[in-house]
Amino acid sequence: MRLAAFNVVAVARLVYNYGFLCYHIFMIYLDHAAATPVSDKVFEAMKPYFSHDFFNPSAAYLPAKKVAADFEAAKGVIAHAIGAKASDLVITAGATEANNLAFTSINLDGSCRSFSSPTSQGSVGDPLHDRHPSILYLETEHDSVRKIAEQYGGEAVRVLPSGVIDLKDLRAKITDETQLISVSLANNELGTIQPLTEISGIIREIKIDRLKRGIKTQLLLHSDASQALNLLDINVARLGVDLLTLNSAKVYGPKGVGALCVSHDVRLKPVVYGGGQENGLRSGTENVPSVIGFAKAVELAKEHLNGNRKKFASWRKILLAELQGYELINKKHSLDNFVVLCYNGIDAERLVFLLEEKEVYVSTGAACAASKGIKSHVLKAIGLSDAEIAGSLRLTLGETNDEEQIHDVAQIINGVVATERERLNG
Amino acid sequence: MRLAAFNVVAVARLVYNYGFLCYHIFMIYLDHAAATPVSDKVFEAMKPYFSHDFFNPSAAYLPAKKVAADFEAAKGVIAHAIGAKASDLVITAGATEANNLAFTSINLDGSCRSFSSPTSQGSVGDPLHDRHPSILYLETEHDSVRKIAEQYGGEAVRVLPSGVIDLKDLRAKITDETQLISVSLANNELGTIQPLTEISGIIREIKIDRLKRGIKTQLLLHSDASQALNLLDINVARLGVDLLTLNSAKVYGPKGVGALCVSHDVRLKPVVYGGGQENGLRSGTENVPSVIGFAKAVELAKEHLNGNRKKFASWRKILLAELQGYELINKKHSLDNFVVLCYNGIDAERLVFLLEEKEVYVSTGAACAASKGIKSHVLKAIGLSDAEIAGSLRLTLGETNDEEQIHDVAQIINGVVATERERLNG
Repeated sequence: MRLAAFNVVAVARLVYNYGFLCYHIFMIYLDHAAATPVSDKVFEAMKPYFSHDFFNPSAAYLPAKKVAADFEAAKGVIAHAIGAKASDLVITAGATEANNLAFTSINLDGSCRSFSSPTSQGSVGDPLHDRHPSILYLETEHDSVRKIAEQYGGEAVRVLPSGVIDLKDLRAKITDETQLISVSLANNELGTIQPLTEISGIIREIKIDRLKRGIKTQLLLHSDASQALNLLDINVARLGVDLLTLNSAKVYGPKGVGALCVSHDVRLKPVVYGGGQENGLRSGTENVPSVIGFAKAVELAKEHLNGNRKKFASWRKILLAELQGYELINKKHSLDNFVVLCYNGIDAERLVFLLEEKEVYVSTGAACAASKGIKSHVLKAIGLSDAEIAGSLRLTLGETNDEEQIHDVAQIINGVVATERERLNG
Repeated sequence: MRLAAFNVVAVARLVYNYGFLCYHIFMIYLDHAAATPVSDKVFEAMKPYFSHDFFNPSAAYLPAKKVAADFEAAKGVIAHAIGAKASDLVITAGATEANNLAFTSINLDGSCRSFSSPTSQGSVGDPLHDRHPSILYLETEHDSVRKIAEQYGGEAVRVLPSGVIDLKDLRAKITDETQLISVSLANNELGTIQPLTEISGIIREIKIDRLKRGIKTQLLLHSDASQALNLLDINVARLGVDLLTLNSAKVYGPKGVGALCVSHDVRLKPVVYGGGQENGLRSGTENVPSVIGFAKAVELAKEHLNGNRKKFASWRKILLAELQGYELINKKHSLDNFVVLCYNGIDAERLVFLLEEKEVYVSTGAACAASKGIKSHVLKAIGLSDAEIAGSLRLTLGETNDEEQIHDVAQIINGVVATERERLNG
């Protein structure tokens, strides 16, 4: 009898878990740079704030004030993880919005930010160039930086074939009008880690020189750390950045929430006007459950940082040893969980499709670009030919994987590539 | 034995429910205009999308495409509830952002939208007035409309002492340069329902007249329906609005998500640049769980609309009958769940505090304004004196209440008011 009753519970639990908490049982997911599942602990942390502690943090009664305090504490946890204070953070609805917000730091000196004719200002050949602020961004940046930078007439800084910023090109492009330089901490297609400390060193030099010459134009460094938060030990002071973008959805936190860490001497303009939340920069009732979840995700990321890095590095080695007939694209300076491969003469989009049939999920590049059939500007920037770009596959390892999967997936990919080569040759 | 085993399950379920799904057991929450808890059914609908169907909707493989399809279907459900199509909706991170987005419909004709000196354009006494677009908004609008309208040099339209728009003032203020009129469907402090159909009728007349005179300036009607979505049967065509703001957090859906319904002939400008999601107007990885929850909440709101209206109307009657020594502020044209009272000579902020001690949660006005100690511009607009404003209490009924609570809360409020009056007289 007891057995029977417990079996009911066990079966019920299995059904519940299968339908919800567990990942898909047979899949091998290697696209953690595109999205990560919300981890169990994160979900548990968020849960009370949906239906129980649901109050508006701006309300005057005690339970609402408790929610407001929990929200502030969560901001404190996120900030602490990167060596900042809660008051340095502006919570946004994601990294894209945070990147957009960072660009409001630009001082337009009364000249107008014309959204209808973005190319009319600050472009290189513009005779009025001197009167406009200059913005520099790395040519391999994610669209959420590139597109807003283009709105401001920003100029792209080149990368070397390694994917690392060309510091000579950066130095050459900085003028006395340069106000903002945006370089992601780690690239979203290659995982390339940029030498932020070196860049901030150059900026410091230039600022000292400007000071000597009585030039008061600001020179800020912004970095999108979306991909790096759970793989690098980030400290804003050590990196020397003025503005840093964080992303919950890439670190096993909920989607639709991110943050911009803002140095105290930087002045931003609101992206959304209203009730005055987030110091007036981002009005709207606080998304409490998501920020609580984001904080838990950041806490866990910090806790597992070293263990995960070692694990991913060893899995990366396994993949590179067991995979066959590829060329490695991200050879150096990469996050440990990025493996970007080129299969010459093969259409990687077909590989994605063939792997999908075996429940192996990989990508050809950034999800938002890939979905539109746009060729990767990142792979182009590091000098790959169109054919090489077409044969490129991005595998990004993560917490849904285990070592067995890594061995398995190497065999599966080898098999699929072999079949495809046969088809092409046959 | 079986009994014992089942008891364990029952107790476990109780603990689980107590800690999460149930509302606070003893509280009486009468601030549903500030925030609503996520309903159980909404939460259940969202759950799979956090950790199981977590894929990036832009990714190329099948499970991601399924998520993208679910996301689109959810948008369809929301749109259908207001007589629109999924493609008419722009999903935003909340109603505040949706209201801000609506204002990008203004055609600035190459003149710049100067965020640094908002008052320099379009103000009434401005000699350059003719060259600037004119924007009209109701003086009782929520800050998320007022503050962005002020950025564009908008002019406020007066309300009558009933809180309803003064249509004469509206007519008088519409010029040939007027491009946008923003009037909420129901006010967030009084619940006053605005005669949108009459307003859109006036707009139609003016558009016909403009056409005759060869004036091509657009004239759009925007309405923030945040408070009304679960209390009025909304149809965009019947209302005659071009732009409609929806809010998930006020209808028992998750916080941090909303939508702007946009008529097909209206052109907006992006608020956030990046990967190009939401037709390029609102870039950023889609917040899938929240939109799924939002759709479920809208579906339930529609389903329970008539039942809830009747229930709230009857509870409102009970309150008005059983409460003592008050003056009713929102006498007419109000949503059924708003009861706004004035206790002359009493400080309503003290009432909020005294009621809080009895686990009764009410408000003195909009949460974001109340938290900053700002006097309600809404109550001022309908002609209340400072003393009357100070004595005003907003009770907003909702799905966490039952009839017993309504009787109880009348007695509790009466008691607290009596004690306070004694204290003041003694």
